[in-house]
Amino acid sequence: MNPLAVALGDPAGIGPEIVAKAWLARVARSIPPFFAVGDARSIGAVWDGPTIRISEPAEAARFFADALPVIEVEDAGDIVPGQPNTPGARCSLDSLELAAGLARSGAAGGLVTGPVSKAQLYSVGFTHPGQTEFVAERCGISADNVAMMLAGPTLRTVPITTHVPLRDVADMLTIELILSKVRATERGLVRNFGIASPRLAIAGLNPHAGEQGALGREEIEIIAPAVEIARAEGINIIGPLPADTMFHARARDRYDAALCLYHDQALIPLKALHFDEGVNMTLGLPIVRTAPDHGTAFEIAGQNRADPGAMIAAIELAAYCAAIRALP
Amino acid sequence: MNPLAVALGDPAGIGPEIVAKAWLARVARSIPPFFAVGDARSIGAVWDGPTIRISEPAEAARFFADALPVIEVEDAGDIVPGQPNTPGARCSLDSLELAAGLARSGAAGGLVTGPVSKAQLYSVGFTHPGQTEFVAERCGISADNVAMMLAGPTLRTVPITTHVPLRDVADMLTIELILSKVRATERGLVRNFGIASPRLAIAGLNPHAGEQGALGREEIEIIAPAVEIARAEGINIIGPLPADTMFHARARDRYDAALCLYHDQALIPLKALHFDEGVNMTLGLPIVRTAPDHGTAFEIAGQNRADPGAMIAAIELAAYCAAIRALP
Repeated sequence: MNPLAVALGDPAGIGPEIVAKAWLARVARSIPPFFAVGDARSIGAVWDGPTIRISEPAEAARFFADALPVIEVEDAGDIVPGQPNTPGARCSLDSLELAAGLARSGAAGGLVTGPVSKAQLYSVGFTHPGQTEFVAERCGISADNVAMMLAGPTLRTVPITTHVPLRDVADMLTIELILSKVRATERGLVRNFGIASPRLAIAGLNPHAGEQGALGREEIEIIAPAVEIARAEGINIIGPLPADTMFHARARDRYDAALCLYHDQALIPLKALHFDEGVNMTLGLPIVRTAPDHGTAFEIAGQNRADPGAMIAAIELAAYCAAIRALP
Repeated sequence: MNPLAVALGDPAGIGPEIVAKAWLARVARSIPPFFAVGDARSIGAVWDGPTIRISEPAEAARFFADALPVIEVEDAGDIVPGQPNTPGARCSLDSLELAAGLARSGAAGGLVTGPVSKAQLYSVGFTHPGQTEFVAERCGISADNVAMMLAGPTLRTVPITTHVPLRDVADMLTIELILSKVRATERGLVRNFGIASPRLAIAGLNPHAGEQGALGREEIEIIAPAVEIARAEGINIIGPLPADTMFHARARDRYDAALCLYHDQALIPLKALHFDEGVNMTLGLPIVRTAPDHGTAFEIAGQNRADPGAMIAAIELAAYCAAIRALP
């Protein structure tokens, strides 16, 4: 397996610090070789450990035991941890583009993306809703056909709608939207996790999954019909299930991933159970792509307070999935 | 403290079995005296342990060590576990009425209610949305001024709206509704838990609590103004907080109860963390009232498969709160 490309994210955020801390954990956690992509000065600003500049992903394995390998992108301008600026945003975008390209070419075994500031990215002309959609486009995949999966040690969830007001969720749900996410989730579990016959579950939208229509009709009119079509395609999926009783330990044993109708339905259980280990993974791409499930945390950048747990989990999951994909 | 009254719920559900199992755990769990209210035959149908008929709550303490005390209500007709019928529904309603009256008079130290079938109750003329509203009315309290709290060992949540379709939630939220639940929650924590200065948190409705209006405006227009008014009244409340990051262990340490905007926002984290120990407690009543946070489970009634964990937790919590209220 080729080394993973880890884009540092915004140079003024906690990305450089948690990538460095992930490298420090390489022996204790048996982390396979990876290399950072970004401005090496952003690492030096928050960490005094060894880095080494490389120009090819293949060099990473040779140096990884002794120093954190970095493939440099353009100068990020003045780097002050906690104080994002325009050159830094441009650098984070260039890092993402380069790292995604290396993964797309196969030179990198997979892509891990550090946290960026969307507000900053928009100021330098970024037009995608987030890194996920950008990476999908660079891979030639429509955003409709990828799915965001949140993965922790005992739960995987896939939100069918994401960053929209709660009052708009019910009207956004369609049979076709649900089916596209169900299909992407099933394919993603096969390809990335090596699960031959993934077991899916889908939540209801309303309390008690609508109680046969008494508490809402989306289960009857949209979700159940989508489930029927998916089953006819051979997909193993149960539901719609009452959302409140599907996330405890015994219930989680029944499925490999839970499809949820809205952001917080997917994120509340994941973060309640696995706050420091949540990984955001994009399903439906030709490459492995993961990210820690948190933001830039500018308010603690440069203070050596950032917890690298989610970044380590993102790297470990990317390595795991890349190894599965590399199987003959 | 006077013994607790435990209404058996529907005689064909798992109520009788889990009340009997709770009595069996009285020594191991140091459960203080309680008595069942219902048809003793519903216990005999699923359990061969000792019961004793009593006519006054005060007798319960004398017999509790050796037998499960029962205050009888009318004959529930033919009792077949798993097969609810009209006489059984009437019996469950009479049991609730009697147990609530004994708690209201002070003869019982508090009220614990077993699971009932709402569909069955409606068939015998029950017109309340649930047991909570019935008990509130019998206590002379408007349903607007009580709050349903879900309590587990490390989390308490209060849903501000409950059994309504998700698409209707946003339009149901008003500053006044939120304030009435905030006030009931604060008073309830003081009276039932002896917390002198309760720390409350309230969730946002939209992803990331609306991101300053970009993902919804209810936080700005309704929730934050309600929080401001509550603070001006001296209530210690934080929020609106992003719902996905307020339920992990460190976040839960910051508050004594979390107010949530809709059913699943409150129930998903509670049941993900504390599925077998979730207690439904009514705040704002002159009496202590708790219930296990699950239904009649007709499908497993009479098979000795019901887990009494939530019933035991409900009895323990009622005893704890009754003892707090009895302090001078």
